[in-house]
Amino acid sequence: MKTEHVNQIAAAINAVKATEVKNVYFVACGGSMASLATGDYFLNREIEIPSRVYTSNEFVHVNPPGLGEGSVVILRSHSGTTPETVAAAKFAREKGAVTIAISMEVDSPLCQEAEFTVHYNYKDGSDAIDGETGVYYSLIFGILNAVSPNEKYERVLNQLNNLETLFESNRKLTYDRAFQFGSEYKRDKLIYTMGSGAYYHQAYSFTSCLLMEMLWIHSNAIHSGEYFHGPFEATDFDVPFLIIKGEGATRPLDERAINFAQKFSKKVEVVDVAELDYTGIDEDLKEYFGPALAGVVLRQYADGLAEHTGHPLSVRRYMWKMEY
Amino acid sequence: MKTEHVNQIAAAINAVKATEVKNVYFVACGGSMASLATGDYFLNREIEIPSRVYTSNEFVHVNPPGLGEGSVVILRSHSGTTPETVAAAKFAREKGAVTIAISMEVDSPLCQEAEFTVHYNYKDGSDAIDGETGVYYSLIFGILNAVSPNEKYERVLNQLNNLETLFESNRKLTYDRAFQFGSEYKRDKLIYTMGSGAYYHQAYSFTSCLLMEMLWIHSNAIHSGEYFHGPFEATDFDVPFLIIKGEGATRPLDERAINFAQKFSKKVEVVDVAELDYTGIDEDLKEYFGPALAGVVLRQYADGLAEHTGHPLSVRRYMWKMEY
Repeated sequence: MKTEHVNQIAAAINAVKATEVKNVYFVACGGSMASLATGDYFLNREIEIPSRVYTSNEFVHVNPPGLGEGSVVILRSHSGTTPETVAAAKFAREKGAVTIAISMEVDSPLCQEAEFTVHYNYKDGSDAIDGETGVYYSLIFGILNAVSPNEKYERVLNQLNNLETLFESNRKLTYDRAFQFGSEYKRDKLIYTMGSGAYYHQAYSFTSCLLMEMLWIHSNAIHSGEYFHGPFEATDFDVPFLIIKGEGATRPLDERAINFAQKFSKKVEVVDVAELDYTGIDEDLKEYFGPALAGVVLRQYADGLAEHTGHPLSVRRYMWKMEY
Repeated sequence: MKTEHVNQIAAAINAVKATEVKNVYFVACGGSMASLATGDYFLNREIEIPSRVYTSNEFVHVNPPGLGEGSVVILRSHSGTTPETVAAAKFAREKGAVTIAISMEVDSPLCQEAEFTVHYNYKDGSDAIDGETGVYYSLIFGILNAVSPNEKYERVLNQLNNLETLFESNRKLTYDRAFQFGSEYKRDKLIYTMGSGAYYHQAYSFTSCLLMEMLWIHSNAIHSGEYFHGPFEATDFDVPFLIIKGEGATRPLDERAINFAQKFSKKVEVVDVAELDYTGIDEDLKEYFGPALAGVVLRQYADGLAEHTGHPLSVRRYMWKMEY
């Protein structure tokens, strides 16, 4: 990892260490919020310190009474310019919280408003350890290790050095199927996604940012456990589902949803995260790495749809084109 | 309120009072989870005690380290038979949490597994104060008043006696529009819903239980603040939205989403909760009562769709008909 990232992350973790942490808020919008939510999932699964995810604008308007000294607020925006998130950073900092901004732009408004900056490299040829996942995982597992030291977290931090190789190998492993999916589902105007645990947020991101935003395909990210309490009645032979079969504690929820969906729909695509390549990752750490690998693999499914629909992922009709 | 409800609620609140509460978990599935989430929203908006909502099966599989003595776990199932929620009650109680079951069936498995039972009357001609909303609000604002006494909460508890009249007057107020909506949207195979704050959970419930489950209409409950970070790109002149314009802190988020959606879709239905009848409710308490009134009004919109599609809300193809 590049020295500047090491130093930025260390500074943020030291600030957390120096605080008697009463709660952690993860605050961002859209895909950035979904990415942060993976950290919320890990915190909530590993330690007792309460945490909560907010979309930035709601965070400011709700103004939770728990926010103040002793709060750690982690914010994220790819460009660092998302106005709601910039406002949330200012708001949280004024309340006395430790504020940590994550962005690819170190000079962005978000990084200026927050007390600490953790920036990541993006599409500049850097190793994955310096990219968004490597840097974010380093921060989260660094915080976990600071507040509740555990050799397991140290192994996660070490094994993050395998990310680059694993991203590459898993892209190769799933390339053919992802583009085949694009061909088979290219005429579908609606594709549901499903997942549970940390993978729910991958489903949310795929639904909101890839299907709805970039491909103009209708969607809803259904939690695998919630599927049976309403949404499953919308299942029919021609209703498509992309289901993430997670690696980790909530896998049984996904298996149950897949079994049902496959019985009544002819269009069920399963992305089995346990079948991915985990070379260099200890068996007991797979559940931490699974969500990171799933993200890279799912992106390729969107590439497959873009290829076969002829609708590039870069096209927008509203975003960045007008005031809203 | 009937004496049995008063006593059940008092017993549950006394147990909470006798506990040094470190966290509150709201655990249920589907529409019951969405109903509980309103309580989570109020707790998080009013006091510092951390709370979190779980779909029941994920709660058990994730097994959060924060769960144990000092936890209050509130569970809910209409029939009291939802297997995942019954299992969650058993699990939480074994961990030493204070468990409170909410159901219409006092003899149900859920009420047997939980330490405390708060039951409500359902479609038996009882006053709304003894129904699901009256009883749940009495519990939540009773807990708030117990852990953080405030005359405001006492006024909420008193004014809950107006629920019956308000449900009736607001049903009348919105009847024509709800059935007109049913006529205008009856050919739509997809209707998005939107909301924020406590109303997000009303949107979720409408999407999962009314549109997808009962009417087989595709949907996604979009958070008004998240709309601009992906989902809004799926907006087009013929894409329908049912948007809740909330009464409370996050109303500006809804207003912004409505302004945008109305610009680019010809099918935007706005349910403005501020325009409902609040006779007998103090101005500063409207934000607490709004979600309760919205639920009753939205149900009527589903009735309108059922009437004009000829698809009764009671029809199912999978639920209760097979093992899953």
